[in-house]
Amino acid sequence: MLIDTLNWRYATKKMDPAKAVPEEKVARILAAAQLAPTSSGLQPFEILVITNADLRAQLRGAAYDQAQVTDGSHLIVFAAWDNYTDARIEAVVDHTVAERGIPREMVTPYYDNLKAQFLPRPAEVNFDHAARQAYIAFGIALAQAAEEEVDATPMEGFDPAKVDEILGLREKGLRSVTLMPLGYRANEGDWLLGMKKVRKPLSELVTRID
Amino acid sequence: MLIDTLNWRYATKKMDPAKAVPEEKVARILAAAQLAPTSSGLQPFEILVITNADLRAQLRGAAYDQAQVTDGSHLIVFAAWDNYTDARIEAVVDHTVAERGIPREMVTPYYDNLKAQFLPRPAEVNFDHAARQAYIAFGIALAQAAEEEVDATPMEGFDPAKVDEILGLREKGLRSVTLMPLGYRANEGDWLLGMKKVRKPLSELVTRID
Repeated sequence: MLIDTLNWRYATKKMDPAKAVPEEKVARILAAAQLAPTSSGLQPFEILVITNADLRAQLRGAAYDQAQVTDGSHLIVFAAWDNYTDARIEAVVDHTVAERGIPREMVTPYYDNLKAQFLPRPAEVNFDHAARQAYIAFGIALAQAAEEEVDATPMEGFDPAKVDEILGLREKGLRSVTLMPLGYRANEGDWLLGMKKVRKPLSELVTRID
Repeated sequence: MLIDTLNWRYATKKMDPAKAVPEEKVARILAAAQLAPTSSGLQPFEILVITNADLRAQLRGAAYDQAQVTDGSHLIVFAAWDNYTDARIEAVVDHTVAERGIPREMVTPYYDNLKAQFLPRPAEVNFDHAARQAYIAFGIALAQAAEEEVDATPMEGFDPAKVDEILGLREKGLRSVTLMPLGYRANEGDWLLGMKKVRKPLSELVTRID
């Protein structure tokens, strides 16, 4: 049950470099991210899966030397679109029309309205909106990792400009938003392992209005 | 399996007003949101659960008259902190120290560093960061709803200023970021029901670097 796996997971601080996550588990974690809902179905982000040792060593340097980046077997990078463009939205329309076998006119008014709303906005506003969509997929991928009994560390603690440079993301119209090393918790050396999971009580988190 | 439930779910456009989601399912959806990981464990958001008919009618007006807001049995509102403050971060430290039974000095340097980073930033930057954390919980709550075979519609299509006013959020230092009506899909009247789920192919979504 998802609730149980969410209780099991934690932001693993020390991964065992000798244990690799099987590829079929990585594939299902990516499939979950792919299935995540996003605003108007735009999926305005890309995902990089990095096992390359040299590259991960460089990325660790851009992530305050956090060891999970290289101790895990796979590093997942979520990178959001730097802006919305006519071409990017048109590609979504093309794909939707082809997949559903529907007349283009059926969806044109909706996406024309979306373009009228998004395209005049500053790139930063659109990037921020795209980043939020990436966070939905990020959350769902974390949930799937837990379902697979794979440890994952949600990471914002890195220098996005450096990560973008190392991976050549800006040239592709992308900006890194989160990292997620995948691996298996080490038996020793993790100060957080065994600590009680702390969450705000429901009485503070939730307000009910009946 | 989560992947299967993610394939089952869709952004329900027409809910059956005669069917209510059982409270134990709502409770587990909220528990999943509570368990979502957030930056430094801050959980910088609150969740409102609204069944009140008058209030939901007003909110529907602020959400471009989308019928799910009143046709569902529960409306979930995710509202992020409008800013990070010393008091808010201190409350997290207090709670963490109490729950884990650890000396305050053990975590003080970490949170002092966090304050030095967050508190000088403009409120808008901090709100945006808080909103992203809310999106992680939003994604995980959507996943849990699907696990419960409860329909949920992820919604950004609303006027946040109006929703904030209706719910008195700004006075509480909160700003609405997403809505999630919960209910059950109607048998008729939903143009999206039965349409193929469209997602970007993995070949376009994912880049592998070995």
